[in-house]
Amino acid sequence: MKAFNDLADFSNEEISALLELADRLDSQPEPEALRGKVLSLLFLSPSLRTLASFQAAMTRLGGGSFVISPDMSIHGLETRPGIVMDGAAAEHIREAVPVIASYGDAIGIRAFAERKNLETDLAETEFSALIDLIHTPYINMESAMNHPCQNLADWKTLDDLGVPANGGKFVLSWAYHPKALPLAVPSSTLHMAAKRGMDVTVLRPEGFALPDVLMQKASEAAAKSGGSIQESDNRKEAMEDAHIIYAKSWSSTKYYGDKLGDQKAREELIDWCVDDPWFDNAQDDCRFMHCLPVRRGVVVSEPVLDGPRSVVIHEARNRMLAQMAILHQMLGGTS
Amino acid sequence: MKAFNDLADFSNEEISALLELADRLDSQPEPEALRGKVLSLLFLSPSLRTLASFQAAMTRLGGGSFVISPDMSIHGLETRPGIVMDGAAAEHIREAVPVIASYGDAIGIRAFAERKNLETDLAETEFSALIDLIHTPYINMESAMNHPCQNLADWKTLDDLGVPANGGKFVLSWAYHPKALPLAVPSSTLHMAAKRGMDVTVLRPEGFALPDVLMQKASEAAAKSGGSIQESDNRKEAMEDAHIIYAKSWSSTKYYGDKLGDQKAREELIDWCVDDPWFDNAQDDCRFMHCLPVRRGVVVSEPVLDGPRSVVIHEARNRMLAQMAILHQMLGGTS
Amino acid sequence: MKAFNDLADFSNEEISALLELADRLDSQPEPEALRGKVLSLLFLSPSLRTLASFQAAMTRLGGGSFVISPDMSIHGLETRPGIVMDGAAAEHIREAVPVIASYGDAIGIRAFAERKNLETDLAETEFSALIDLIHTPYINMESAMNHPCQNLADWKTLDDLGVPANGGKFVLSWAYHPKALPLAVPSSTLHMAAKRGMDVTVLRPEGFALPDVLMQKASEAAAKSGGSIQESDNRKEAMEDAHIIYAKSWSSTKYYGDKLGDQKAREELIDWCVDDPWFDNAQDDCRFMHCLPVRRGVVVSEPVLDGPRSVVIHEARNRMLAQMAILHQMLGGTS
Repeated sequence: MKAFNDLADFSNEEISALLELADRLDSQPEPEALRGKVLSLLFLSPSLRTLASFQAAMTRLGGGSFVISPDMSIHGLETRPGIVMDGAAAEHIREAVPVIASYGDAIGIRAFAERKNLETDLAETEFSALIDLIHTPYINMESAMNHPCQNLADWKTLDDLGVPANGGKFVLSWAYHPKALPLAVPSSTLHMAAKRGMDVTVLRPEGFALPDVLMQKASEAAAKSGGSIQESDNRKEAMEDAHIIYAKSWSSTKYYGDKLGDQKAREELIDWCVDDPWFDNAQDDCRFMHCLPVRRGVVVSEPVLDGPRSVVIHEARNRMLAQMAILHQMLGGTS
Repeated sequence: MKAFNDLADFSNEEISALLELADRLDSQPEPEALRGKVLSLLFLSPSLRTLASFQAAMTRLGGGSFVISPDMSIHGLETRPGIVMDGAAAEHIREAVPVIASYGDAIGIRAFAERKNLETDLAETEFSALIDLIHTPYINMESAMNHPCQNLADWKTLDDLGVPANGGKFVLSWAYHPKALPLAVPSSTLHMAAKRGMDVTVLRPEGFALPDVLMQKASEAAAKSGGSIQESDNRKEAMEDAHIIYAKSWSSTKYYGDKLGDQKAREELIDWCVDDPWFDNAQDDCRFMHCLPVRRGVVVSEPVLDGPRSVVIHEARNRMLAQMAILHQMLGGTS
Repeated sequence: MKAFNDLADFSNEEISALLELADRLDSQPEPEALRGKVLSLLFLSPSLRTLASFQAAMTRLGGGSFVISPDMSIHGLETRPGIVMDGAAAEHIREAVPVIASYGDAIGIRAFAERKNLETDLAETEFSALIDLIHTPYINMESAMNHPCQNLADWKTLDDLGVPANGGKFVLSWAYHPKALPLAVPSSTLHMAAKRGMDVTVLRPEGFALPDVLMQKASEAAAKSGGSIQESDNRKEAMEDAHIIYAKSWSSTKYYGDKLGDQKAREELIDWCVDDPWFDNAQDDCRFMHCLPVRRGVVVSEPVLDGPRSVVIHEARNRMLAQMAILHQMLGGTS
């Protein structure tokens, strides 16, 4: 495996194999599998779960990692091409990224969307520019439109819970949040659920529809796997018979890059907080999923988040297991 | 071992066994003992020795660790219960702590006292709330009133120096410091020396007595081990025949949570700096102990700190060895 | 090996042996060589390559490391001797350094020059004071006048490229940079190239000559190895038949410690940016070297840096390999 960048690059069979490997590594540790192997971890955007779970994953497999992050005094890596570097930044990513990559057997990179221009972000312009600089295997630790490690972990969570792949109803719901957040999780989660063969409803208020090209990609995945895609702005209808509600806030696509427009659109929607009444006509055992971090009392009510429907900690632990499987396949363990 | 939270939870025999193990691991390394094992390290308060010594300890035993700390860009984990998270904090400890714990085989947590209300701090309200969130084994890396890893390391240092357990005189002395510091080290050090069976004198000026409940806990430990507890505000008397002076500054308990009151009380006490004359009527080989960090020329004079009485570096190295023993017992090595 | 502080402490044969070991460890990994061994990494100055490459090096050899850096909340370690610590700093290096060292089997220390007084910096006053505090083996990760890991990596790069040791022409060139940078890299690179037996030209504008004592040290090394040292302020003449141009900006030695004087001197020299015409009369395959980080369009033009002459990424990867060899010899692997 040379890259783990997008779940779309893998067949459902390959995904099943990865998840079987994840389960096996959980029950039968392999602390020698990657001994002496190094994972470079480059965070151009902040992280908690990804930071912790990748380090833990490498240690459990007998290897190690190092972290370069925006917390460090190496401030302001320059990213603009063709610039005369007479300002604050002392180093350009054109050197920093290949150097960091050269110390590892693989590299994980996180770089959030700029959220100025939707076309640029949909094209993964920034992440592609980083990947073009390296020759080692790499893992997408969240880019403008993708978060494949989260997707793989969530797929595993759905399997763990016994949620049917075909015939299971997956509601991907927008939720209120004071800030305009990236599209990576909703976009790639939509695709994941569709690819798994589920009946997916994207529940979102007006102005927050996901980009056509991503809806299209998900539809194609659904068609192949026997799933379906719908959109709705009606919470009651959307939640009917749902097995899963996957909540996430995201930027307005109508006002993408327009901070004020987005703010005005979202401040009308403060009641899009997932609480008990949302589950009135869902399946009895409908579960609440979220990638974390989540704002209590804003995105989701405390009773739902702390109650038996919530599987958010299970999802987060699956990040580590999914990543162990990816690293095991990528860095030379045999599956 | 499911928790290492308070020396009071262990018998003197169990402590001896831990310290024998620490010695053995120092002379006969076991770089395979914890291979593939992960220690999660969560710092809600700053650290140098604890940060470095736990990482080194895990590496020496063949495992690894990862660190989440307040230095990171994951700013402002929310800690208040029942809050609507519409402010700066993006994540609540109710998710962050169990997630971080789920990546490790054990977790170390540091959370200093809030120092607003003495009863709350004595009840370990904050630390207990964190521990309630996790299901893995844990290590207290300093809470409001406890610092058991420091205590175990200091016990070892006393053993290493041949200071008698019964009949040895241990002076725990307040010292001047410009800031109001936590009670964790003095409180738990008092208990450690009492439990070891020593004759302990708490030397402190008026207004800086340690809380009754902690004096009581120490008295009971002393009674069981053949030691004794006294209090004094007279430096000359207290130091008579002392084998050890353990210096530490701490908050005024009279003005606890009252910053101004504490400041006024302490600024009269600038001469409580341990210097050579303090040792005039002590044992000839009386040693100076301190948990570090220590302010030179403020808490202790340079000649004492740099002189032959000082064992502070020895104490600090024992942190690593004591923690290796704890980790070895907790994470499945056999002792 | 008790210290890796200065290439001058090693014979050319010892350096060859280190570089052979570096090559061998690259092609035949030894992930068990340093199992259970710990490298303490203390950064009093910022770092990217050194930070990453030392962590990766220890992991590849089966050991581990921990990092204490100025990024951390342990702010303001006090360095002044004899000070009464009643200010912001809570800990003095006299405790911090031996404690950090005591957790490792060796320690790497980085401490840039203060750049106030040239004599003090030439005497390595600050670094020596740090080294005096420790008893473990140590590695200089860049001090006022030395950067031996960079030097060893660069020597390896020259070998990898097949640049002749005797008869090869090495131009060490000053370049423009908006800030006054340390002398460590130019000084120690000059010595490295001389010791390798090359014909070295130090190309620098008036006011930027390297200190006499360092020129002298290099001359002696050159004499021993069959090399030579020249100085020039004429770019065309200096570059004639050059095999290598090693670019680096550094402080004015004429205005050392005089920020304004240095600034005025350098702002006349903005055209000292290495670009294609510099290579007009060099060897056809003349290479461009730089230790990184480098400012594009300032120190070097984009076409040179991105073109086939540039070997900067190769140099940076050699940092890791050179350091693996050092660590292997220092920490008990057999060569």
